[in-house]
Amino acid sequence: MGLIVQKFGGTSVANAERINHVADIIADTYKAGSNVIVVLSAQGDTTDDLIEKANEINPHASRRELDMLLSTGEQISIALCAMALEKRGLPVISLVAWQVGLQTNNTYNDARIRKISKERVQAELDKKNIVIVAGFQGVNAYGDVTTLGRGGSDTSAVALAAAFHADLCQIYTDVDGVYTADPRIVPSAHKLAEITYADMLELASQGAQVLHNRSVELAKKYHVNMEVLSSLEHVPGTKVKEVIKMEKTNIGGVAKMDNFARFSLVGLEDRPGVAFKVFSLLSRSSVNVDIILQSVGRSGSKDISFTCPLSSLEAARSVLQEHRDAIGYDHIEVDDNVAKISLVGAGMMTHVGVASDMFEALYDAGINIQMIATSEIRISVLVNKDDANRAVKVVHDKFFGDED
Amino acid sequence: MGLIVQKFGGTSVANAERINHVADIIADTYKAGSNVIVVLSAQGDTTDDLIEKANEINPHASRRELDMLLSTGEQISIALCAMALEKRGLPVISLVAWQVGLQTNNTYNDARIRKISKERVQAELDKKNIVIVAGFQGVNAYGDVTTLGRGGSDTSAVALAAAFHADLCQIYTDVDGVYTADPRIVPSAHKLAEITYADMLELASQGAQVLHNRSVELAKKYHVNMEVLSSLEHVPGTKVKEVIKMEKTNIGGVAKMDNFARFSLVGLEDRPGVAFKVFSLLSRSSVNVDIILQSVGRSGSKDISFTCPLSSLEAARSVLQEHRDAIGYDHIEVDDNVAKISLVGAGMMTHVGVASDMFEALYDAGINIQMIATSEIRISVLVNKDDANRAVKVVHDKFFGDED
Repeated sequence: MGLIVQKFGGTSVANAERINHVADIIADTYKAGSNVIVVLSAQGDTTDDLIEKANEINPHASRRELDMLLSTGEQISIALCAMALEKRGLPVISLVAWQVGLQTNNTYNDARIRKISKERVQAELDKKNIVIVAGFQGVNAYGDVTTLGRGGSDTSAVALAAAFHADLCQIYTDVDGVYTADPRIVPSAHKLAEITYADMLELASQGAQVLHNRSVELAKKYHVNMEVLSSLEHVPGTKVKEVIKMEKTNIGGVAKMDNFARFSLVGLEDRPGVAFKVFSLLSRSSVNVDIILQSVGRSGSKDISFTCPLSSLEAARSVLQEHRDAIGYDHIEVDDNVAKISLVGAGMMTHVGVASDMFEALYDAGINIQMIATSEIRISVLVNKDDANRAVKVVHDKFFGDED
Repeated sequence: MGLIVQKFGGTSVANAERINHVADIIADTYKAGSNVIVVLSAQGDTTDDLIEKANEINPHASRRELDMLLSTGEQISIALCAMALEKRGLPVISLVAWQVGLQTNNTYNDARIRKISKERVQAELDKKNIVIVAGFQGVNAYGDVTTLGRGGSDTSAVALAAAFHADLCQIYTDVDGVYTADPRIVPSAHKLAEITYADMLELASQGAQVLHNRSVELAKKYHVNMEVLSSLEHVPGTKVKEVIKMEKTNIGGVAKMDNFARFSLVGLEDRPGVAFKVFSLLSRSSVNVDIILQSVGRSGSKDISFTCPLSSLEAARSVLQEHRDAIGYDHIEVDDNVAKISLVGAGMMTHVGVASDMFEALYDAGINIQMIATSEIRISVLVNKDDANRAVKVVHDKFFGDED
């Protein structure tokens, strides 16, 4: 029946009861005749607890030693889960990154996977063992432990699925799939049976928490069939793949992000090279800029607005203030009370009226649009944070109907 | 100033405060000009907590997965300690067993060290890094994690000291050295400035908790200079080496053990081969026998008594009962209310009167001796457990004087 990779997050393995439940899911898959590779995160709050221990001793510890510390969390999960499968009489073995041969670059805390040496895992699969792999971790060229950063275990799972040509990579989580909008905001949001890599990527990078975009990028690159499903309820999840059967609309969903700020540089001189100067300065300060908007000049001056993560707010402000004379602006406006609402769907921009329908929905609800950005498969608008949830709801209702 | 190996136990690294204190000791050693390899145990109760987690899921988990689980404890300690040294501005790196290349045999939970591949540790020492190594763990020929069993971190430290020809291997613990008897039993017990490997081995295997005998055996074999000292108080400890300056007596100390039982097979036929039959049966059931005593026969019968660990009591009883006809005895007596008091000292048996002085002390105190066993450097007596502490005290007073 081929090979299935199953990934379970921290909530799914938080305690003995949950681990037993996960072991039952794995056992069912194995008994149905599949080879199984399992990827696990650290239990519940383990990673946070370890970070707290580190901070108590040295808040400026090296990233290398942090990775040495944090990687223990996943090792505990895999050993315990292997024990639960042993109890069920099944052949199983747990492996950490150096045993898997999961090689990364040298960026501690946020490493990128380079290669997986397949010998050990393949040998265990050939012995019909269930292979339980520690997610989130790798080994670099120095022979040191690295971790993969946020969403790292999802990425480990997809990388293993790609390396071993798995038939399916199941991401078990505490939600049961990908929704057309956050069901906590839009009660009428419905679960998608399928979504394309491209739409999933846009949704993930525009604020949907269900999958980290690095794992989706990797899945897209290596054509890994993914499925997002619940470890708690036994219901079908959402399949993520290259081509899907179209649903009644070509809109994948609505996402919200609100952890960023809007900057406006007001009264810039209207001459060539100003935008280049601004954004090269921000780039050198490692400020990731998202939406950029440049207004048409009035009487020889123009304004440039952009958004950046809240975590970069002070870095952006100080570099811009420091180079005020070189840039040549009148003043800076900063607004951190903003949210971005994104409508995502393959080929959306080639369909007439999608953008105007979205704007109409917002206009009817009296919600002011501050900025607009579009891509081939996405329209994003910046609104006041207080209007954000209402904006998600009215945009969702416009395209998916209010099914309440 | 050469190379010093420093080992700190679980109590010494139990929390952030203790780890900072340990980091200060290491920093002082390094700043005095030595290369330093540090070996750490898991923090406080970590190992017990992990075992409890395992038991909750599967009390019969494989030893392989238990080792995978338990080895995380030391990894946490070394990362945290490295962070504490980073905070002190010192160059430091933590390494786990697979990075050290500490190779063992395949006996999970109780592995024996085979070899240490020195490349990585030597490279770090050459870079003037303080090297912090996870104790208690190794890697076997399958590329799996093993643990070294009780006292494993002491053994890791001595093995590293031997491999790198360290000038000294310091075992930091919560007592400040090796005493002539347990100070909690004998208040007048005094700390030994020096002790030979041979005496330390006898004391360790006869119940002194301060060092595990495997580490002493290894130190003796490779002529590693050891020192047992306190991580809490800055006072001289006890040096363990090949030859020591003799103190006023040649007696090393008095030790007590009480976790075993005495068996007596009464009414055996007095013919050749009976003892062989009894002890080969026990050996096949993995019962470790300590003292053996065979009484002179009365009217064609004889008695055989022996001691074994409490943990083997039921195994010994059942194998003896099962083969009652083949062995041919009248009945079995078992007494688990016994204790063994041992007097240890190099060349003791060549000194006239040591044994008789010991027996006299016990006789004067009205303590009955059930069995006697002697070796070149040890006299052990079996007494009623209720008399044990009093026996340690009167024997100690006889040889070291009551200094209270």
